[in-house]
Amino acid sequence: MFYFLIDILGTIAFAISGVLVAMDKKLDLFGIFIISFVTAVGGGTLRDMLIGNTPVLWMREPIYITVIAGAVVFSVIFARHLKHLRRTLFLFDTIGIGLFTMLGIEKGLTVDLLPVMCIALGTITACFGGVIRDMLCNEIPVIFRTKEVYATACILGGTSYFILILLPIDGAYAYIAAILIIIVTRLLAVKFNIALPNIYKKIDA
Amino acid sequence: MFYFLIDILGTIAFAISGVLVAMDKKLDLFGIFIISFVTAVGGGTLRDMLIGNTPVLWMREPIYITVIAGAVVFSVIFARHLKHLRRTLFLFDTIGIGLFTMLGIEKGLTVDLLPVMCIALGTITACFGGVIRDMLCNEIPVIFRTKEVYATACILGGTSYFILILLPIDGAYAYIAAILIIIVTRLLAVKFNIALPNIYKKIDA
Amino acid sequence: MFYFLIDILGTIAFAISGVLVAMDKKLDLFGIFIISFVTAVGGGTLRDMLIGNTPVLWMREPIYITVIAGAVVFSVIFARHLKHLRRTLFLFDTIGIGLFTMLGIEKGLTVDLLPVMCIALGTITACFGGVIRDMLCNEIPVIFRTKEVYATACILGGTSYFILILLPIDGAYAYIAAILIIIVTRLLAVKFNIALPNIYKKIDA
Repeated sequence: MFYFLIDILGTIAFAISGVLVAMDKKLDLFGIFIISFVTAVGGGTLRDMLIGNTPVLWMREPIYITVIAGAVVFSVIFARHLKHLRRTLFLFDTIGIGLFTMLGIEKGLTVDLLPVMCIALGTITACFGGVIRDMLCNEIPVIFRTKEVYATACILGGTSYFILILLPIDGAYAYIAAILIIIVTRLLAVKFNIALPNIYKKIDA
Repeated sequence: MFYFLIDILGTIAFAISGVLVAMDKKLDLFGIFIISFVTAVGGGTLRDMLIGNTPVLWMREPIYITVIAGAVVFSVIFARHLKHLRRTLFLFDTIGIGLFTMLGIEKGLTVDLLPVMCIALGTITACFGGVIRDMLCNEIPVIFRTKEVYATACILGGTSYFILILLPIDGAYAYIAAILIIIVTRLLAVKFNIALPNIYKKIDA
Repeated sequence: MFYFLIDILGTIAFAISGVLVAMDKKLDLFGIFIISFVTAVGGGTLRDMLIGNTPVLWMREPIYITVIAGAVVFSVIFARHLKHLRRTLFLFDTIGIGLFTMLGIEKGLTVDLLPVMCIALGTITACFGGVIRDMLCNEIPVIFRTKEVYATACILGGTSYFILILLPIDGAYAYIAAILIIIVTRLLAVKFNIALPNIYKKIDA
């Protein structure tokens, strides 16, 4: 129940972020809905297609399409006021990538993938909805450009999980700890302005 | 036989529309063929990958690749004259989305999806060939931008189908009625210049 | 063992070409890694999703992710010197598309596809990593624009394979001959500046 709630909150945050990007591009209502939908479920869809877990999740669980449709209606109506929710949305989004990463890792384990592949699958689940959103909006994906600690947090949390389950602790604690590591890593990175190393300075020097 | 013929006509219309977009972008012969192919079968391919119906349809039915290759050769040779076929192509395309939507819905039913997911799958079948075409051509997909009644017609027709089969009529009639609803909706929308609501005016006011 | 070595060399060449494109676009380290990875394994991934061969190959064989990670580290450090390797990289890339095409054809045969579909699948394996790379980098795919003999070489080699296996020779010879035909076709095309016909001159005249 608790996980489920977080999953839904993460989906809503992703859906709203999709609406904002789509409205920046002045898309029509159908375009806004698709971009929102893709942002929210695109990562999980790609994950399911990569491992052959079909029909993909959102086709089997109508809760996602319902929640996203609601989020789109809400966001389009209150678009002007969403700026004031920036911090709330950022928090939901951060919680979302934490949970989505671990959901992806779980799916990877059920099809017997190696840890490194599970971590890749978790990162794809968390981050590739935004990548597909940006491709559809004719932009180079934002997580490839900004040196932001985003996918890096997912990789770090996922790696921690596979280290923690080697310890004599309950798997559920390792699971929750990994989610927290992702969330805290991202919050700290934003707070202290930590970024990926700039490789271009070195080269241009 | 009748459905098959419409399927092929729709494929040809989609393939030619792909050639026209590709030639606008001055692509080379290989690029034109791929864009044409993707426009015609991309929606069905995505549908098949989403539900795990693999190898995807066009790999099992050589008729598609044959027809598309023919359409590409024809269109490249007679490119200058295709403008005069604009109305015919528009009609084929409209018939095509009607049929493709219902083909997608049928596939959804065979894997026990809910009606709303079947409608989504039908709309993907009809509309996402054009979406992938536009992504490959480095454009924001045209159906996300123009407020045109296109995907909306597919959704409307698909919804009608699931209402009609609740009535005490033959399923085949419901199927054909849904196709006609999609076609007529689009034709009327174009004729009377009906569009999706402009949500930006409200916001900017 | 020999094939395996060529497969790895091809993967490295593709990965490095991805790094170069990503650095041209000034992407961050994560972006560079993803673009490199997609360039190297994107074609095979699409192939595996189209035929339902899941989890896709790179998830089952950790050698790919390892080799690509190594290639990325190497390329980022020695980026300035990679220009001097242009000829070597071109050779690896050419050998790569030869082998990747035949690997794709083999996979197609294992799921009983027709020869023409196997050739399509082989060409997708060899060429679509670069296509997805260009989509992610917000460019119209280079192989659709340049009239270069690239995909054409794959199609030619694949077709030769299905002609050669009709002859009373060992299948392994046909396999190697097809790879060589792809490699030689591309080398000759580059050396003698042979390109796809320009269809636009005719039209504009």
